[in-house]
Amino acid sequence: MLKNTRTIRVEWGDCDPAGIVFYPRYFEMFETCIAALFERATGMTKYEMLKAYEFSGYPVVEARAQFLAPAKYGDDVIAETTISAFRRSSFDVVHKVFNGGKPAVEGFETRVWVGRDPQDPSRLKSKAIPRDMIERFTAE
Amino acid sequence: MLKNTRTIRVEWGDCDPAGIVFYPRYFEMFETCIAALFERATGMTKYEMLKAYEFSGYPVVEARAQFLAPAKYGDDVIAETTISAFRRSSFDVVHKVFNGGKPAVEGFETRVWVGRDPQDPSRLKSKAIPRDMIERFTAE
Amino acid sequence: MLKNTRTIRVEWGDCDPAGIVFYPRYFEMFETCIAALFERATGMTKYEMLKAYEFSGYPVVEARAQFLAPAKYGDDVIAETTISAFRRSSFDVVHKVFNGGKPAVEGFETRVWVGRDPQDPSRLKSKAIPRDMIERFTAE
Amino acid sequence: MLKNTRTIRVEWGDCDPAGIVFYPRYFEMFETCIAALFERATGMTKYEMLKAYEFSGYPVVEARAQFLAPAKYGDDVIAETTISAFRRSSFDVVHKVFNGGKPAVEGFETRVWVGRDPQDPSRLKSKAIPRDMIERFTAE
Repeated sequence: MLKNTRTIRVEWGDCDPAGIVFYPRYFEMFETCIAALFERATGMTKYEMLKAYEFSGYPVVEARAQFLAPAKYGDDVIAETTISAFRRSSFDVVHKVFNGGKPAVEGFETRVWVGRDPQDPSRLKSKAIPRDMIERFTAE
Repeated sequence: MLKNTRTIRVEWGDCDPAGIVFYPRYFEMFETCIAALFERATGMTKYEMLKAYEFSGYPVVEARAQFLAPAKYGDDVIAETTISAFRRSSFDVVHKVFNGGKPAVEGFETRVWVGRDPQDPSRLKSKAIPRDMIERFTAE
Repeated sequence: MLKNTRTIRVEWGDCDPAGIVFYPRYFEMFETCIAALFERATGMTKYEMLKAYEFSGYPVVEARAQFLAPAKYGDDVIAETTISAFRRSSFDVVHKVFNGGKPAVEGFETRVWVGRDPQDPSRLKSKAIPRDMIERFTAE
Repeated sequence: MLKNTRTIRVEWGDCDPAGIVFYPRYFEMFETCIAALFERATGMTKYEMLKAYEFSGYPVVEARAQFLAPAKYGDDVIAETTISAFRRSSFDVVHKVFNGGKPAVEGFETRVWVGRDPQDPSRLKSKAIPRDMIERFTAE
């Protein structure tokens, strides 16, 4: 499976009064890591991909994380992201974040491929992940 | 066990280009819900409580959530927060968020009571949760 | 002119490692204060208002703030919001935030009433603010 | 004066339901741009710099920005940051953000160099900016 690795600088504004990352920021980081993984797979930004594949995004249905070691502003953490499973209209993502060479956060998400509901365009509805999209991840 | 219930307005800035809550915002909401629960138990804000109990906070070691239904800006969601278990220096929190009377998000966190490490004040170290703090939650 | 006043709890996650509000959070606060002011004027949430008035929002073209005194988590700040001027398709907003009875932040924004550009629906374009909307603010 | 230029990817989570950057995110961007400018000047992260220069940060006393053109998720904006003036204990910062080669945002901040107040360590107090720090910006 395709994997993407990024180095992310922890910023002052990511940290709380204890001086460490305010934990919801890691879930924001996961969002950017997935967009980067898809960009590596497709060569498209999320904006371009939503247009090209005519869908509305991949919202989260389940997310979890274990926080193993803190990170502080100025730290450069390394985030590895991979999709561990594709199903008809959903997929699982695994995130491993390292700080100073040691595991800092392990995350897991299940996301759903959605489009506008033809019955009611104000609502989102799951739709099948395109086969050629899946192949971009599994071919490598 | 003591339970706290709050109504939270979903704001424009909480939502993403799909028009629904950007999911890390729910974890930020969890943080405010826990502070509100402790304030209900102690009558103290988090700032006052950290001073009175001489500790540095209760960072998260594990967090997870299931997203059952979306919420959009302008929605008033109701969040119920309770501590499901206390251990020596950690505790578990359960969050139930409802939108329009239906379950929208269910969250679970394990948090650790920490203070400055006496050996190295730049580091955080777990410490025992004060007995009288635990009693404030279990007495009711 | 109609004025709206709200009490806002400063949360742990709003604060930085210095223990005070990370300043972009005040601009997020301004956004929620404007939505609340419009809701007071119209009885509608922003979501309902965008539907009823067929527009896309009121993005900012200019924003500024002076930070006079810090606020920390646990503080309840009071925010007063009023629209100081309406023009054809833009308006000015004044925010005054108090902490412990003293001025903490003074903010000013110019915002534009926009809709989808009929020529290119992927773009936003300014449009006239409805007369009855303006009257809801000036009548009082 | 030393100038720093960075390319910043606009992320999905930076954008609002109108599909464009939620404007407080630009002020968060300014914060990271200043840290990067100081790192270019000193070779130190903000964490290292606060230790080496024994101060508590450079909070904002005034901030303003003009938003000239929108940016959307997937856009790579270019941010140029420079300090336009140093005074005894404060300094002015100018930010120019470009999107697709065109000006998108112009920002201006006044920030104060602060340390813990010797009289009351729970409070912050302005202090003189070290001469050798100023020279790192003006020498180039």
